[in-house]
Amino acid sequence: MAEAWATLGVDLYVEPAGPGLRRGLTDALREAVRTGRLAPGTRLPSSRTLAVDLGIARNTVADAYADLVAEGWLTARQGSGTRVADRTVTPPPDMARPRRERTRSAYDLRPGTPDLATFPRAEWLKAARRALASAPNDALDYGDPRGRVELRTALAGYLARARGVRTDPERILICSGITHGLTVLAGILRARGAHTIAVESYGLPPHWRLLTAAGLRTAPLPFDERGTDPRELTGQAAVLLTPGHQFPMGGTLHRDRRAAVVDWARRTGGVVVEDDYDGEFRYDRQPVGALQGLDPDHVVFAGTASKSLAPGLRLAWLVLPPGLAEEAARAKGYHDTCGALDQLTLAEFLNSGAYDRHVRAARLRYRRRRDALVARLGREAPQVRATGIAAGLHVVLRLPPGTERAALRAATWQGLALHGLHAYRHADAPGECPDALVVGYGTPPEHAWNGALDALCAALSE
Amino acid sequence: MAEAWATLGVDLYVEPAGPGLRRGLTDALREAVRTGRLAPGTRLPSSRTLAVDLGIARNTVADAYADLVAEGWLTARQGSGTRVADRTVTPPPDMARPRRERTRSAYDLRPGTPDLATFPRAEWLKAARRALASAPNDALDYGDPRGRVELRTALAGYLARARGVRTDPERILICSGITHGLTVLAGILRARGAHTIAVESYGLPPHWRLLTAAGLRTAPLPFDERGTDPRELTGQAAVLLTPGHQFPMGGTLHRDRRAAVVDWARRTGGVVVEDDYDGEFRYDRQPVGALQGLDPDHVVFAGTASKSLAPGLRLAWLVLPPGLAEEAARAKGYHDTCGALDQLTLAEFLNSGAYDRHVRAARLRYRRRRDALVARLGREAPQVRATGIAAGLHVVLRLPPGTERAALRAATWQGLALHGLHAYRHADAPGECPDALVVGYGTPPEHAWNGALDALCAALSE
Repeated sequence: MAEAWATLGVDLYVEPAGPGLRRGLTDALREAVRTGRLAPGTRLPSSRTLAVDLGIARNTVADAYADLVAEGWLTARQGSGTRVADRTVTPPPDMARPRRERTRSAYDLRPGTPDLATFPRAEWLKAARRALASAPNDALDYGDPRGRVELRTALAGYLARARGVRTDPERILICSGITHGLTVLAGILRARGAHTIAVESYGLPPHWRLLTAAGLRTAPLPFDERGTDPRELTGQAAVLLTPGHQFPMGGTLHRDRRAAVVDWARRTGGVVVEDDYDGEFRYDRQPVGALQGLDPDHVVFAGTASKSLAPGLRLAWLVLPPGLAEEAARAKGYHDTCGALDQLTLAEFLNSGAYDRHVRAARLRYRRRRDALVARLGREAPQVRATGIAAGLHVVLRLPPGTERAALRAATWQGLALHGLHAYRHADAPGECPDALVVGYGTPPEHAWNGALDALCAALSE
Repeated sequence: MAEAWATLGVDLYVEPAGPGLRRGLTDALREAVRTGRLAPGTRLPSSRTLAVDLGIARNTVADAYADLVAEGWLTARQGSGTRVADRTVTPPPDMARPRRERTRSAYDLRPGTPDLATFPRAEWLKAARRALASAPNDALDYGDPRGRVELRTALAGYLARARGVRTDPERILICSGITHGLTVLAGILRARGAHTIAVESYGLPPHWRLLTAAGLRTAPLPFDERGTDPRELTGQAAVLLTPGHQFPMGGTLHRDRRAAVVDWARRTGGVVVEDDYDGEFRYDRQPVGALQGLDPDHVVFAGTASKSLAPGLRLAWLVLPPGLAEEAARAKGYHDTCGALDQLTLAEFLNSGAYDRHVRAARLRYRRRRDALVARLGREAPQVRATGIAAGLHVVLRLPPGTERAALRAATWQGLALHGLHAYRHADAPGECPDALVVGYGTPPEHAWNGALDALCAALSE
């Protein structure tokens, strides 16, 4: 009974100063409210709780509270306890500053984010409940730098079945995004003395920037209708590729070139990094198997839940060759591991089949969007040629030469957030960059999709 | 109807090769099972689903499945579909390797991890349900590098109320651990040209190592009965302190020294990093208010959910001075942010009062353990003096000179995992290191606590 106080109520830090306990406590509380440290509406502990916490008489606290209620700093109401009064708001200057909002377009057609309205919230919570019910206590401890073994095991099975990846759980590294994984890999390559990594002529500038920041020069390979040309691979330490679905051009790396890349890696000991960012989304035929399946000893396979579920989960994975797995786990370290609960939940989501169901439903929705987009543009903007349409959550719309900037202006005018192909081209890429728009059709929620399509057609048929 | 296939079943990657579709598919599936890519028990898609996915006739798939069932590679059972047979296990050498288990002692008395059996799983799930029900869709997108605004707002209120921290949500940075936050800070300090950071004579070697790895020399300050002595602070760029509860010695920084540290920071522009790793756990009087409250413009306050809830959440926070907040958000970047769902859940957990309830219940449990520990040792090992007992999840047991190594050997013999004080002493610390044991009493689950205490008493009364 004497200890019951300890578990009731809320914590309040207050340091009574000066002579006289009641006066000191009243002053300290008033000061905390006046300066905004205690925000309006904040619930204070009961006088009994605070008295025990402070080691003073309960009446002293009750008197101080009563003084401050009388002064208007606090309010006391039956049932809701004592709270900081609302009308004492004098926010410090910092808090009065209006929050900056990124200017938003009416429709976001930049690639990279799936339709977040379709995130399977109820299914995810069910999986979280099952995962947490069966998790051992030590799943909540500081974890293995590679990530929870439950998730690595589930991924090893899933990636083998659905993507043709050859691995075991020991060689999987859970990270908080493909960018996180690339940062880890770049650090290892630099530590081995590497200076240059080959990349594609088209790709994600943030990836190039993080590689540069890690001390690696990014050297783009030529690109043609069969995809990225690996013939210029020579002494580079590694090559970063999107063989399953070139980002953003959309094609699949030709099988002769897949073989050539693997040959290069075997011959030189180079590392191939396969960014399989949206391998789950292929519409017209079977997904291309992972390049990693050709040579698990030289290819790093990188996948993510950012497109198939949501970027906010911050869950991605590297499948590493035996010679890199331990080094990568050491380089990642235990301090930037991902939350255990989401890892356990994703493992349960995969094992229960909910992931397959979700991906297949999403694939159908996105395919319908792609079909509608291609059909509408064929009718209303025949000068535009949609390419890279067999997979993924975006298409490339080829434009008549010299019209990309005008098309972007028209799109902005129509309320669209949209990038041109030039935004994804490496500054050192050889050859010419065709004029084109990169249109992500995954992002708009279902109710906004038709409006987005109307706006795009209006921009392109002007 | 024609599209219904797309959302049913599971995905399977298989690439039929050679002449004859049935033969090619059979060979490809057999190979996938034989090499272990498809693990025993893996469920295959229905013949209908796979046929549509591959764009071939359903009978071809059904025939291939039938062949492989006949050969014993697959099993087909009414209701559970077609699966990879169990008896075909030929794991590749990698998978056959026995998993390495860290050798475990019977009782873990190393500090750092709370009793994970008391993690409030049901309350956490309730909070997750409420958080996910009310979260906007864009909470699931790539987020603000500082972390979700809901959590930063909840923390600003909680830390002000419970720890006397003065801040607003704009200056809070969510990170995946205090180590993560220190890594970000170390990078900023290095980029500003700093070479040295003052640390305490006793502390966490992993913190020192990460600071060293970031390019900062760690220079320990002297330590005496009033805590760490700041008089040797001169031209260092920053100082890392545990003023509320010195780790591991357990004392509180004397108030004159608190003032001196803040004076130094104001005078020199130095940065004070306040590691408030276990500020929630104080037993005998009110928690000491955060040093940050004395000068929010020069003190970085670092807190964590690792002790109050569980390390596996990977959630911690920095409260930054205005001059560091934007730089820290940039340095952290968006790629190693924490999962949005756990952030939203912790915000709801704080706002609903569940956090206060959990902390107060835990405080009571840990105080009882501490009381039992101190009482037992007083009776059974009177040569040992327990210090630093007013707060936290560990005590320091001072030993007669020259007996630390013998005591550690006796503890190991009794099945205890335990560290001596020397393990937490900086190699360059001035003066002598007393002989002592650092005993974390938070980690053992309730049912093991009495056994752990018996073993400790047995080790020390030998």
